[in-house]
Amino acid sequence: MKILAIDTATEACSAALYLDGVCTQRYALAPRQHAELILGMCAELLAEAGVGLKALDSLAFGRGPGAFTGLRIAAGVIQGMAWANALPVVPVSSLAALSYGAWREHGHEKLMAAIDARIHEVYWGCYECNESGVMLVGEEQVCAAANTLLPAGQGWVGIGSGWAAYEAELSRHSGAHCIDYRGDVFPQAQDIARLAASAFSRGEAVSAEQALPVYIRDNVAKKKKDQR
Amino acid sequence: MKILAIDTATEACSAALYLDGVCTQRYALAPRQHAELILGMCAELLAEAGVGLKALDSLAFGRGPGAFTGLRIAAGVIQGMAWANALPVVPVSSLAALSYGAWREHGHEKLMAAIDARIHEVYWGCYECNESGVMLVGEEQVCAAANTLLPAGQGWVGIGSGWAAYEAELSRHSGAHCIDYRGDVFPQAQDIARLAASAFSRGEAVSAEQALPVYIRDNVAKKKKDQR
Repeated sequence: MKILAIDTATEACSAALYLDGVCTQRYALAPRQHAELILGMCAELLAEAGVGLKALDSLAFGRGPGAFTGLRIAAGVIQGMAWANALPVVPVSSLAALSYGAWREHGHEKLMAAIDARIHEVYWGCYECNESGVMLVGEEQVCAAANTLLPAGQGWVGIGSGWAAYEAELSRHSGAHCIDYRGDVFPQAQDIARLAASAFSRGEAVSAEQALPVYIRDNVAKKKKDQR
Repeated sequence: MKILAIDTATEACSAALYLDGVCTQRYALAPRQHAELILGMCAELLAEAGVGLKALDSLAFGRGPGAFTGLRIAAGVIQGMAWANALPVVPVSSLAALSYGAWREHGHEKLMAAIDARIHEVYWGCYECNESGVMLVGEEQVCAAANTLLPAGQGWVGIGSGWAAYEAELSRHSGAHCIDYRGDVFPQAQDIARLAASAFSRGEAVSAEQALPVYIRDNVAKKKKDQR
């Protein structure tokens, strides 16, 4: 299976090419340069592998939650690419990708992923991870960092930029049930790609027209649209 | 020359196919549905004409000024399409397209185009139009509608959503030099396409990576990014 994945949902920008289980990736921490960087990353990966867009089985992208601008960039670029080559698309949760990356790199199985949503709020969700993939426990939410509340059980590990920004607030409730946390971690396209490969096998790909970002907090999206 | 153009910079959403001087267009006033509509419009136009993306000489898009979300959608979709097919891109000013449309439809030659930028501000610019195209007089700006000031001379015609939203304020200075105005008009992809055809002939196309929106007011773009 061949999948090209991109993620621009946070300060990080990355692209990954998944070829039958093996991933290569380009990654940069480059806030505000996502639109300028992402196509070059894709081009490099495909050229190195000698794979054309048309040879892909699917595209994938980090569909959020995350930064409004970044989600629009990823969704737009993927829409255009997918439509131009009649490729299906797998939208992947940014929180799921964060969690899966922590499992892949450190073996953590119970993750509380939290992405900085500014003004002391976080996008967050709890995932249990293993070699078959990720499973969402409860639902993805946005709320004040001080109000996050982990599901029952012990052994959770915090992950994501929310932990770097609001450690004290997250710890008020959730931290008591966390054995560790890492705040300097962002979603990566290689995890988007891996999760997309499973999702694609399960028939979860959509058409280019349906490759849209997911905003957890509708009133924020509305406010931004009203402000333009 | 064959050009596919899209515009999602305002409440309107449109796509146009320019084939050797003749334009066909899809157009809808559909705020917040741009990302869902735009690919279908493109597909219909190409299918009707029996033209494939690869047969195009260039893509074009309304690069702003306009709604933040809309500009990101158009730029992203065009980036993906252009990159996937190695097509060049012509970014076209939304204010130029508005002006050129007013010349094409009504023969007005001196246009003061103003797009509603919310909170009593407008994106605006003055264009002189004729059969060879458009010429910007002064520069494109954003400011309080009450502070716009037309260049010297008489016979200007106001055009665009700014006039519908802030007629009284625009008239404070600019209106005195305008012989007429129309506020119920939005940029159209067919004018993006026509202006792009001229620009393409002059060698003004750019690569997919450079197909980026133009924000006149940097502090707004910054504020939105900071807010995410």
